[in-house]
Amino acid sequence: MNGVNGMDVAILGVSGYSGSVLYKLLQEHPKVNKVNLYSRHPNRYLHTTISAFKNQPDLLKPYDPQEIMATNDLLFLATPAGVSSQLALDFLAANFPVIDLSGDMRLKDPLSYEKWYQKKAAPKEALAQVTYGLAEFEKVGKYIANPGCYATATLLALAPLVKEDIIKPNSIIVDAKSGLSGAGKKLSTNSHYAYINENAVTYKVNKHQHIPEIMQELTKWNPSIGPIQFTTTLIPITRGIMVSAYVELKEALTQVKLEAIFKNCYQDCPWVRFSGKELPMIKDVSHSNYCDIGLVYNSLTNKVLVVSVIDNLLKGASGQAIQNFNKLYGFDEMLGLPALPAWP
Amino acid sequence: MNGVNGMDVAILGVSGYSGSVLYKLLQEHPKVNKVNLYSRHPNRYLHTTISAFKNQPDLLKPYDPQEIMATNDLLFLATPAGVSSQLALDFLAANFPVIDLSGDMRLKDPLSYEKWYQKKAAPKEALAQVTYGLAEFEKVGKYIANPGCYATATLLALAPLVKEDIIKPNSIIVDAKSGLSGAGKKLSTNSHYAYINENAVTYKVNKHQHIPEIMQELTKWNPSIGPIQFTTTLIPITRGIMVSAYVELKEALTQVKLEAIFKNCYQDCPWVRFSGKELPMIKDVSHSNYCDIGLVYNSLTNKVLVVSVIDNLLKGASGQAIQNFNKLYGFDEMLGLPALPAWP
Amino acid sequence: MNGVNGMDVAILGVSGYSGSVLYKLLQEHPKVNKVNLYSRHPNRYLHTTISAFKNQPDLLKPYDPQEIMATNDLLFLATPAGVSSQLALDFLAANFPVIDLSGDMRLKDPLSYEKWYQKKAAPKEALAQVTYGLAEFEKVGKYIANPGCYATATLLALAPLVKEDIIKPNSIIVDAKSGLSGAGKKLSTNSHYAYINENAVTYKVNKHQHIPEIMQELTKWNPSIGPIQFTTTLIPITRGIMVSAYVELKEALTQVKLEAIFKNCYQDCPWVRFSGKELPMIKDVSHSNYCDIGLVYNSLTNKVLVVSVIDNLLKGASGQAIQNFNKLYGFDEMLGLPALPAWP
Amino acid sequence: MNGVNGMDVAILGVSGYSGSVLYKLLQEHPKVNKVNLYSRHPNRYLHTTISAFKNQPDLLKPYDPQEIMATNDLLFLATPAGVSSQLALDFLAANFPVIDLSGDMRLKDPLSYEKWYQKKAAPKEALAQVTYGLAEFEKVGKYIANPGCYATATLLALAPLVKEDIIKPNSIIVDAKSGLSGAGKKLSTNSHYAYINENAVTYKVNKHQHIPEIMQELTKWNPSIGPIQFTTTLIPITRGIMVSAYVELKEALTQVKLEAIFKNCYQDCPWVRFSGKELPMIKDVSHSNYCDIGLVYNSLTNKVLVVSVIDNLLKGASGQAIQNFNKLYGFDEMLGLPALPAWP
Repeated sequence: MNGVNGMDVAILGVSGYSGSVLYKLLQEHPKVNKVNLYSRHPNRYLHTTISAFKNQPDLLKPYDPQEIMATNDLLFLATPAGVSSQLALDFLAANFPVIDLSGDMRLKDPLSYEKWYQKKAAPKEALAQVTYGLAEFEKVGKYIANPGCYATATLLALAPLVKEDIIKPNSIIVDAKSGLSGAGKKLSTNSHYAYINENAVTYKVNKHQHIPEIMQELTKWNPSIGPIQFTTTLIPITRGIMVSAYVELKEALTQVKLEAIFKNCYQDCPWVRFSGKELPMIKDVSHSNYCDIGLVYNSLTNKVLVVSVIDNLLKGASGQAIQNFNKLYGFDEMLGLPALPAWP
Repeated sequence: MNGVNGMDVAILGVSGYSGSVLYKLLQEHPKVNKVNLYSRHPNRYLHTTISAFKNQPDLLKPYDPQEIMATNDLLFLATPAGVSSQLALDFLAANFPVIDLSGDMRLKDPLSYEKWYQKKAAPKEALAQVTYGLAEFEKVGKYIANPGCYATATLLALAPLVKEDIIKPNSIIVDAKSGLSGAGKKLSTNSHYAYINENAVTYKVNKHQHIPEIMQELTKWNPSIGPIQFTTTLIPITRGIMVSAYVELKEALTQVKLEAIFKNCYQDCPWVRFSGKELPMIKDVSHSNYCDIGLVYNSLTNKVLVVSVIDNLLKGASGQAIQNFNKLYGFDEMLGLPALPAWP
Repeated sequence: MNGVNGMDVAILGVSGYSGSVLYKLLQEHPKVNKVNLYSRHPNRYLHTTISAFKNQPDLLKPYDPQEIMATNDLLFLATPAGVSSQLALDFLAANFPVIDLSGDMRLKDPLSYEKWYQKKAAPKEALAQVTYGLAEFEKVGKYIANPGCYATATLLALAPLVKEDIIKPNSIIVDAKSGLSGAGKKLSTNSHYAYINENAVTYKVNKHQHIPEIMQELTKWNPSIGPIQFTTTLIPITRGIMVSAYVELKEALTQVKLEAIFKNCYQDCPWVRFSGKELPMIKDVSHSNYCDIGLVYNSLTNKVLVVSVIDNLLKGASGQAIQNFNKLYGFDEMLGLPALPAWP
Repeated sequence: MNGVNGMDVAILGVSGYSGSVLYKLLQEHPKVNKVNLYSRHPNRYLHTTISAFKNQPDLLKPYDPQEIMATNDLLFLATPAGVSSQLALDFLAANFPVIDLSGDMRLKDPLSYEKWYQKKAAPKEALAQVTYGLAEFEKVGKYIANPGCYATATLLALAPLVKEDIIKPNSIIVDAKSGLSGAGKKLSTNSHYAYINENAVTYKVNKHQHIPEIMQELTKWNPSIGPIQFTTTLIPITRGIMVSAYVELKEALTQVKLEAIFKNCYQDCPWVRFSGKELPMIKDVSHSNYCDIGLVYNSLTNKVLVVSVIDNLLKGASGQAIQNFNKLYGFDEMLGLPALPAWP
């Protein structure tokens, strides 16, 4: 543990998409010595669940918080909504480091969680101890609530404009497109190939559970920002999110000035690549932790289109979890994450 | 019923993929007056199940064989395996016309059915009354067992060679590729978009339940043909099957001679288009009832590759059912089926 | 010609995607006797260009306006931009019926055409004789400029709100998603499978050539509507467009009231299906001439999201051309077009 | 160069798919200090060609063999067919290390090259100095001809059986499926999204240019093997090859015995994972250098189906090039290559 040979880390929920990406990243992370897998459905071999990992000998061990804390330096929770709210308390009480990929601990207001997730919230005091881990803007803490995929892409697209206070209140419209891995490996009509192939399906308009964490962060940056319009559409790809954010400016600006604001905001952020008026496409970031951002100003309407793209399983989940892990231990923010996207 | 205004027909199982394609075809068939929908889960509106049919007012009525026979001229069964074997007896007893898209009544041998389908077979006497409805080669009867999709493509690829008795026994190898609609709308790991997209998955090697109906037909044509090697691979498309059949010839032949055999065999078959050495692709037949066939002879190996393609929901299911319906009532074989594939 | 056996019609440009869909529809149209194919690259057989039509014997004849007018009742132009502007004059002079699927004759203002298309416009007097053929709202004329695919989906989404004059000026934002057949069969980086698969690519932001025809029609309906924000994104599907239109209302309304406005507007339009707050998906209209529309009102922002979907090659091109053909000759608007979408 | 800071390596042809994957792998390879890019169309920035690499400052330098040899330790040629045959001589003369991903130098017989590639071959003496780099079976040399993608998957599927001499001569049938990146980024009808999506296209039956290198290697292992039947089919995926190889055995064997032969053959090969009768799927190896192999014996026909899968851009091109690079310098064969596939 945390010795010369590196750190020992635990994953709960390795069978899911985020969990398996996390496993792959941690296996290759230079500061990690050993990845221990735990499950609430234990005594399975990893390779029987994920045939791509057929040469990995790991056995999933029973979930046991005491054993986890005794054996590991940190725990990654890659569990579905409604689980970490139950498990978090043990680790918070022990001040044991956790990076939680679920949505359970992101909202400070338990009532908001219960409204949007339709599940029982964790206690307010527990939620207060948690850090929202938007890696570009937030300091890390011992218990990090890793942001949602839509929230990451949306907040990074809007942050420079919102912080600069140049957006007309109540003018933000987010039209987000997402691939199918975002909803996890659970079977559903939406994810049946014959249903979603050659299709596009808009769902949960203004009702997606990532809206409250976006609003929590936006209003922290700028209390006057007002409500947002938020649309999510499934498109037939496996990985990737594209956020098209439309905002109206308080006063007329120029493309040049807007580009300067973004460049300035992200100059020290290695995982954000701002490309000016060249709008990024999803494949620019596939299988990488980058968030690529571009924007186009329309002087006729005084509106800006900001397009941001991420790989929802990397920057939108497990990649950002590694980025937070690196920040927590003072490693280089880019360590253990692929330096370049996969192309083509 | 069967009057000046055309025929009234019933569908049981309209919610499935074959059922919905059947519904669309029958709605547009010039000899059909009314399509009545029945279900074992009735009192739903069609459009609540299939939003593409949102302007159709149909209510699914409870399954009642007496009511079906009193109200309709013919019944299409588009039910899953294990259902028609139970329902068939009422209609057989009444000598009421049925076109059955399921696999339940295709095999003459109940033991074979039970081995391959792992379900209880219909009685042998009932099976004896059924006609296997491979439309290009079989006469129609009152109860038609519509062939399986893989079986249709495989049999049409092999028929000319097998009937001509020029294949070396025990030399047939079928490598078949299929889209996801073939397995129906049931949710499964295989059909999850994130699983099957950017993938190809071989399954049920030499164990697919269409093998026995292929063997039943091949050995009827030529008892010396011997066992076949049969591989099925899912590829990420919604519709379509490509069969690549490899056979070794008893004696050396030529491309020209082989083409003549196929042309001769299919000269009176409007739904088979033979294209010689130009091999067909799946999109050549999409959304149509055509089976396109091409072949390439290899003089080095004395082997022939025959490629046949169908739309599994048309020629491989509901289209062939309409073709059989046309044959049963003496209509033009092409009536009510689109004359051309959808391109692109 | 136009006798007891039906009409004879000509297509120029059958090799393209719109042309081939038009050919298929006209082959099956009950009022059409014969489809004659012309080309500026003649003396090819149709089936050598489109293998899906391999059983069609048609030879492409040389383009000759006199021969076309002597032999046919009407001409469909399915030619690329920059061609009809040259060819139109002969037919306009002769008052010969033309349905023109290209963008050349849609704009009344030649300067606007030259700005957006970067090509030489037809003379202003010629443009004045042309009818813009948005079938739900415009009367037909002898020379019909069939609307663009994005324009059709956008105008049908916005018409009820714009005509009712309830939208705040300068508040329209259109985020449109399109498949790859929209750009035709021309080879380009964007259309390479390895580039666009698992991708989404935003292009021509506020610069798409369908914007001026949208503005021409919107301002005719309501001169105060102001400029629009217009984004187009390619998604990896072959067919289909989804338009997500966001508007801010002048005054607060309700979901119920908005639905009543749409229902009222489209009550006599057989090819528009309004589904209230159930938003349509692209597959609801695939391979059909329907435009499906739904909307969601957001009382927090006083904004409305209207989602409309079409098959770009049907309602967005050749299907609407047939609809205009039907209107021109007084046939039922639905004649010769499939009554139901293809599902799945 | 080759000092404490690692090696300097050159790439010619970085703009293609193999070149860009090579660039990414070399950037992350622990023994590589610097990657220098050369081009016959120089003075472009890498990021203007490949937007996914937008944060890479590399400028493509003019191709100059003397400069390349003076500045680098090794050259990777990722050029199209017909180029390396011209360029190779300079490097062979200087005994400078080259790993050549093209097909130009793989065949020992210049006449065979000219027949299959329809291009001028390199001189016979030059070809004699080249090592065919099938990494699992061949020793490395100074000039390595990296195998073709289909050849790699086919040879690894067949090697254990061919070397063991248990296959009946003239019985090998290979049915191979490939994604679109295999044919490179050149635009063609086959690679147009609207053409190949929802499609499968068989091409070059028994005429693919990888056949002679397969035969060259198979007959080296076993001169009695006889001609093979070789079919290639494009399926709508970006990356991946699945080879389904059918062979007839000389004498009856068992599944257990066959599995033992494969396990034994590949026990020291870290990049081959043999999975027995569990057949691998393409996604098991995506974005990795693994070749996964499974087999099913059919006692009825005495035939074996062997299924092998690779990522055509990794094990089928740039990954194997790195593996050969590692072997050439005595590094661990797995160095600098991702230890696990990307899932999902």
